[in-house]
Amino acid sequence: MVTKVIRLAALLMALLLLAGCAEKIESTEKIEQNASLEQEYPISEETKRCLGCHEKYTPGIVADWRESRHARVTPAEALKKPPLERRVSGERASEYRNVVGCYECHSLNVEKHADAFQHFGFKLMVVVSPEDCRTCHSVEVEQYMRSTKAYAYDNLAKNPVYSQLVNATISMKRVEGAQVITGEVEENTREETCFGCHGTVIKVAGYKDVYRGGLRVTVPDLRGWPNQGVGRINPDGSRGACTSCHPRHGFSIEIARKPYTCAQCHLKPDVPAWNVYKESKHGNIFFSKGEGWDFEHVPWVLGKDIKAPTCAACHNALLVNEMGEVVANRTHDFGERIWIRLFGLIYAHPQPRHGATYKIKVYDPTLNAELPLPSSLSMEYASDYLISPQEMYIRKENMKRICKTCHSTDWVDKHFSKFEKTVNATNAMTYEATKLMLKAWEAGIADDSNLFDEYLEKLWVEQWLFYGNTVRYASAMTGAHDYQSFMLGWWDMSKNLKHMESIVENK
Amino acid sequence: MVTKVIRLAALLMALLLLAGCAEKIESTEKIEQNASLEQEYPISEETKRCLGCHEKYTPGIVADWRESRHARVTPAEALKKPPLERRVSGERASEYRNVVGCYECHSLNVEKHADAFQHFGFKLMVVVSPEDCRTCHSVEVEQYMRSTKAYAYDNLAKNPVYSQLVNATISMKRVEGAQVITGEVEENTREETCFGCHGTVIKVAGYKDVYRGGLRVTVPDLRGWPNQGVGRINPDGSRGACTSCHPRHGFSIEIARKPYTCAQCHLKPDVPAWNVYKESKHGNIFFSKGEGWDFEHVPWVLGKDIKAPTCAACHNALLVNEMGEVVANRTHDFGERIWIRLFGLIYAHPQPRHGATYKIKVYDPTLNAELPLPSSLSMEYASDYLISPQEMYIRKENMKRICKTCHSTDWVDKHFSKFEKTVNATNAMTYEATKLMLKAWEAGIADDSNLFDEYLEKLWVEQWLFYGNTVRYASAMTGAHDYQSFMLGWWDMSKNLKHMESIVENK
Amino acid sequence: MVTKVIRLAALLMALLLLAGCAEKIESTEKIEQNASLEQEYPISEETKRCLGCHEKYTPGIVADWRESRHARVTPAEALKKPPLERRVSGERASEYRNVVGCYECHSLNVEKHADAFQHFGFKLMVVVSPEDCRTCHSVEVEQYMRSTKAYAYDNLAKNPVYSQLVNATISMKRVEGAQVITGEVEENTREETCFGCHGTVIKVAGYKDVYRGGLRVTVPDLRGWPNQGVGRINPDGSRGACTSCHPRHGFSIEIARKPYTCAQCHLKPDVPAWNVYKESKHGNIFFSKGEGWDFEHVPWVLGKDIKAPTCAACHNALLVNEMGEVVANRTHDFGERIWIRLFGLIYAHPQPRHGATYKIKVYDPTLNAELPLPSSLSMEYASDYLISPQEMYIRKENMKRICKTCHSTDWVDKHFSKFEKTVNATNAMTYEATKLMLKAWEAGIADDSNLFDEYLEKLWVEQWLFYGNTVRYASAMTGAHDYQSFMLGWWDMSKNLKHMESIVENK
Repeated sequence: MVTKVIRLAALLMALLLLAGCAEKIESTEKIEQNASLEQEYPISEETKRCLGCHEKYTPGIVADWRESRHARVTPAEALKKPPLERRVSGERASEYRNVVGCYECHSLNVEKHADAFQHFGFKLMVVVSPEDCRTCHSVEVEQYMRSTKAYAYDNLAKNPVYSQLVNATISMKRVEGAQVITGEVEENTREETCFGCHGTVIKVAGYKDVYRGGLRVTVPDLRGWPNQGVGRINPDGSRGACTSCHPRHGFSIEIARKPYTCAQCHLKPDVPAWNVYKESKHGNIFFSKGEGWDFEHVPWVLGKDIKAPTCAACHNALLVNEMGEVVANRTHDFGERIWIRLFGLIYAHPQPRHGATYKIKVYDPTLNAELPLPSSLSMEYASDYLISPQEMYIRKENMKRICKTCHSTDWVDKHFSKFEKTVNATNAMTYEATKLMLKAWEAGIADDSNLFDEYLEKLWVEQWLFYGNTVRYASAMTGAHDYQSFMLGWWDMSKNLKHMESIVENK
Repeated sequence: MVTKVIRLAALLMALLLLAGCAEKIESTEKIEQNASLEQEYPISEETKRCLGCHEKYTPGIVADWRESRHARVTPAEALKKPPLERRVSGERASEYRNVVGCYECHSLNVEKHADAFQHFGFKLMVVVSPEDCRTCHSVEVEQYMRSTKAYAYDNLAKNPVYSQLVNATISMKRVEGAQVITGEVEENTREETCFGCHGTVIKVAGYKDVYRGGLRVTVPDLRGWPNQGVGRINPDGSRGACTSCHPRHGFSIEIARKPYTCAQCHLKPDVPAWNVYKESKHGNIFFSKGEGWDFEHVPWVLGKDIKAPTCAACHNALLVNEMGEVVANRTHDFGERIWIRLFGLIYAHPQPRHGATYKIKVYDPTLNAELPLPSSLSMEYASDYLISPQEMYIRKENMKRICKTCHSTDWVDKHFSKFEKTVNATNAMTYEATKLMLKAWEAGIADDSNLFDEYLEKLWVEQWLFYGNTVRYASAMTGAHDYQSFMLGWWDMSKNLKHMESIVENK
Repeated sequence: MVTKVIRLAALLMALLLLAGCAEKIESTEKIEQNASLEQEYPISEETKRCLGCHEKYTPGIVADWRESRHARVTPAEALKKPPLERRVSGERASEYRNVVGCYECHSLNVEKHADAFQHFGFKLMVVVSPEDCRTCHSVEVEQYMRSTKAYAYDNLAKNPVYSQLVNATISMKRVEGAQVITGEVEENTREETCFGCHGTVIKVAGYKDVYRGGLRVTVPDLRGWPNQGVGRINPDGSRGACTSCHPRHGFSIEIARKPYTCAQCHLKPDVPAWNVYKESKHGNIFFSKGEGWDFEHVPWVLGKDIKAPTCAACHNALLVNEMGEVVANRTHDFGERIWIRLFGLIYAHPQPRHGATYKIKVYDPTLNAELPLPSSLSMEYASDYLISPQEMYIRKENMKRICKTCHSTDWVDKHFSKFEKTVNATNAMTYEATKLMLKAWEAGIADDSNLFDEYLEKLWVEQWLFYGNTVRYASAMTGAHDYQSFMLGWWDMSKNLKHMESIVENK
């Protein structure tokens, strides 16, 4: 009898535990999800109605959301966590006692949205903007609004020099005789290329009917859509798209912390951050061992959750060490930790004071003109618009604190010393190419009405936009030496200069 | 005493359960394998004899096979599954009551195989062809046989224009004086390059002896081997190689569904599907979260098994939603879901009606000749050979159904509208480059006896084969904006045109 | 009562087993770690003192080390394993009865280290060198010391021809008038680029104070630091850095066996081993299925631990088959298994006999000079310095043994036959480009005082350093056919030759 009881108990336990084991192999996120299944998920009545149809019509969206933290925690609960563990910052979060479902976001501040529409009895909008996310994530949105990302549309569209580059690159061309004539830039091409990353202006052109499963649904007819660019101008007038890095409808912190996210825009040949990371020692460790790391944990514990940095670790995540001491505060102003802007325009320069870089002006003595650039062609900086040497020093020391979690003080100092020398060397190489270009403009070999539309001018652009940037990004990430040498780096800087010389000489 | 019994039982259970847990961390495939260990695996006597030696001589092959579904399920059982879950389609599968081992495949239809040989008392062949796989996978093979993949050898080898391109690219060159003379194409180079992907012709040149572990074994002496190209001409006269995507000897559906497989051939700079996917939002999600997805499940459940598409999802897999409704039927005619062929020859064009594209002809008014191309140099389409606008519409709507699992109707409509505008823009840019090229041929600056062998001609080729394709692939995959702008996309289209102009002008 | 006891026991077991399950999902490494938790970890008193501070000041390093095998096994225990399972080879390992902690390495042979310094009562050094690792890993260090890696600094720095290439590539340039003048190479640029991979010379320039947490610490002031180049000249006079592939402070075999490690240096465009592997069939299988493989097990069991090779499998790891037979012995002379050196200098050539390649000389009849190269410009080999045909044959047969674990004898023979034809074809293409270059030097179109600093010369370099190498690497790895065709392969070899011709003709 006793044996029978034991057998039964054992069997029961075996079943229970096997089920438990099975769950264990799921991701951390899933584990929490399963744990929560026993709790109540307070879903609002409105969201339940959304789900009623959308579970059928857009099941992928719903499935993504169901796995998300939004579907499993109420803002009011989330706000009760200890400060370092919090994922919400807006005091208004405390008012939300349901999980964050369809209705909670798509009806927020709808009165400010030009894309508002009536949808089965609800007034909703299509595009949820950072101003809406601000309800629960106010600190993050506030930081973001100071960043160059938030101004990415204006910074490109309102800068006449950059517009010349845009036009030269993506305009339609036509050939007449043997001549290439520059035509117009198609709106569609703008949205597919530069403004795909920088963000479009979303406008409501009217309303249209769409049909799904026999149902007619009237929706706003948007222009500049779809787009998830970082500086998108939204129908409520706000700037930015949180979904650039936290893709719909999971809004995962894990994805945002993985370098694949940054790889969407920060790419070879102009901003090869991702390409260089891949070949760096840090990249090597991430790809080899990263599968077992915790990309969900808040705060992010260096040496425990992760063993080597990803982009997010150095540039924006809240980092602590294993003793719980803060190594770096979270910021969604992605330039806030940076002291030198590596991206040459046309030289690497001190980080701008504010994200709205289209307001920067510098006097250019060679062209005898004011240019909307952080540096003149002869490398004078627009210092009034750029951070001070003191601020540069402070930021560098803050960054070093992150590095020192794993590297000795001297190692870190020497790394940044090498890096600064490399910045100077590439700026000097750009300067020499620019001298050659100025010579060509002066001699009439090229025409400076558009600085970027002739073959020689395009070679010059590659010198700073591709090769100078490549060398600097590679240096910043402690490595990628072969990349820096031969892959659009020093090899091309030297070859290109000789190519430019051969053209100037022959003409 | 009771305590002792409990302790013993507990210990036993602990051991059992720990073992159980250990198994849980294995892949789904492994779990099923372990479950099946308790079943009988009916292995044929013939295959057992194969294994007797090959377990020792080629253990890696055997290990791969042992983990495969072929080693664990009999075709007869596999055929009993509900239709949507089936991985076999041939009625003849019901005749096979042993698992699919060495002998089952390598002796199939051996009488039709020129590569048949006697091997330790069995008549076997080296190359298992799609005609052999047809026994159990008849629907898939039937579909494949209509595809451009099946005709990949003929489409390249029998098209005189493409042959000019092949010859100009991979022929041996010799320098006489300061002149580059085009020589012959080496057979080996053909097989290493173009026909590595397109497929070789496998011929039996005789028999040869090989030695292994002191044993002499006589085997067919094959030409065009080894090769796994998609349009391989096999020793039984059939076309194709299932192993292009389902590598030997696991024949995994998981591998075929992962984008790394397509990456073997669909690569930058000419077909940058893989490169663009990596930098797209879908790629970002796959690389960040895909490790936990189910790449084995049939049918593939969108939103459950996977949260973002891989190549296979959009182009060939059987997809259902979580309600079990079919979103897309399985097809192994990889062009069947496509309406616009992005790969410019030289313009993007409506998808060919049939995979045997070498039969396509178009009248070219500028050259006053009939060309074996889907479009003339002046962009007239070979409409008789291409699908109709009606068929294009149907296919586009079918593709949209996949997108709409996760995206709203309007989002999807607008995406494809952008995409079509981009196709037109790139075709227009190709047209202008072609005008310049025609001018050069006309003026004797270049010689059109081979359209692709001079420096200027090669620049022209890059305009459509590299840059036009890049922009279109990037647009199709909803993103890769920076890639489309600078990485062999718009930047190069514009620069290259000016480069061509400078050459034409100087001559 | 009995029921209560059973319930309690069951509860206890449940808790224990759930904990056990949770551990199961961790990596193999972790499992062993957890298992060992019950053992004693004998940590030396000295290392405990190091940890006392560094756990606080460099927690990332300590965390890495705690997860490493060094922290969990004593050398004396490690030496007791059966020979094939051993990870240590130095008999002196038996003397070490504590785990390998901070002090054990950083105090080893400190009297030979110019970077020795007093640190809180201990005499330590900063840079642990291969000579120090030799204590426990003597066979591996001995092998490494014969390799080209160990001589990577000298081979570049002491070869006057390669130095010309280094100078032409990374020297500062200045523009005077319209002329590009070659200036000096900055020491910093050398260390960031070529010598980043090849290794720097680490020198002690004196001592300096660093500050951490309010503490002043005096440390050696190193030059050429930080650097993890494979041929680094260390402060004890030794060559090499084990940390190139086994990154600090985990020194993981897993990382070294994954291809991401090799990817730090063996990159497109000059040594595209990594790029080609990614697009090969082997790469496809690794990326699709590799997550479940065992990269820790020693010896490495083909077909069990891994199902497709990574770089380490073919080039250096100890491999056995499932029957425990050795397929390849471990070697840390990474050239030891190679018979043809694919890396063209300027032609692919038989593998050098010894790693110190800077001593190689060949008479060049075209330049009537002795060159420090493995082949003359007209393709005569420096045979005295290169392995014999017999040795080439032996090595090829040894490599084939690895392939034959998964491929048939005939398959493997034919693969290498294709490969050798491709090597010859690329060498022939290089020879023709060189003829054109010789013509240009002879005619005064280019100046041979530096062979690599003019635009035409740089095109010539790309012919062999980029395009020839790409085609050969792609061929060696059974595939990457599209890559070999268009991605810096045959397409560029042909285009570049025509580009060179157009320049020579126009001048």
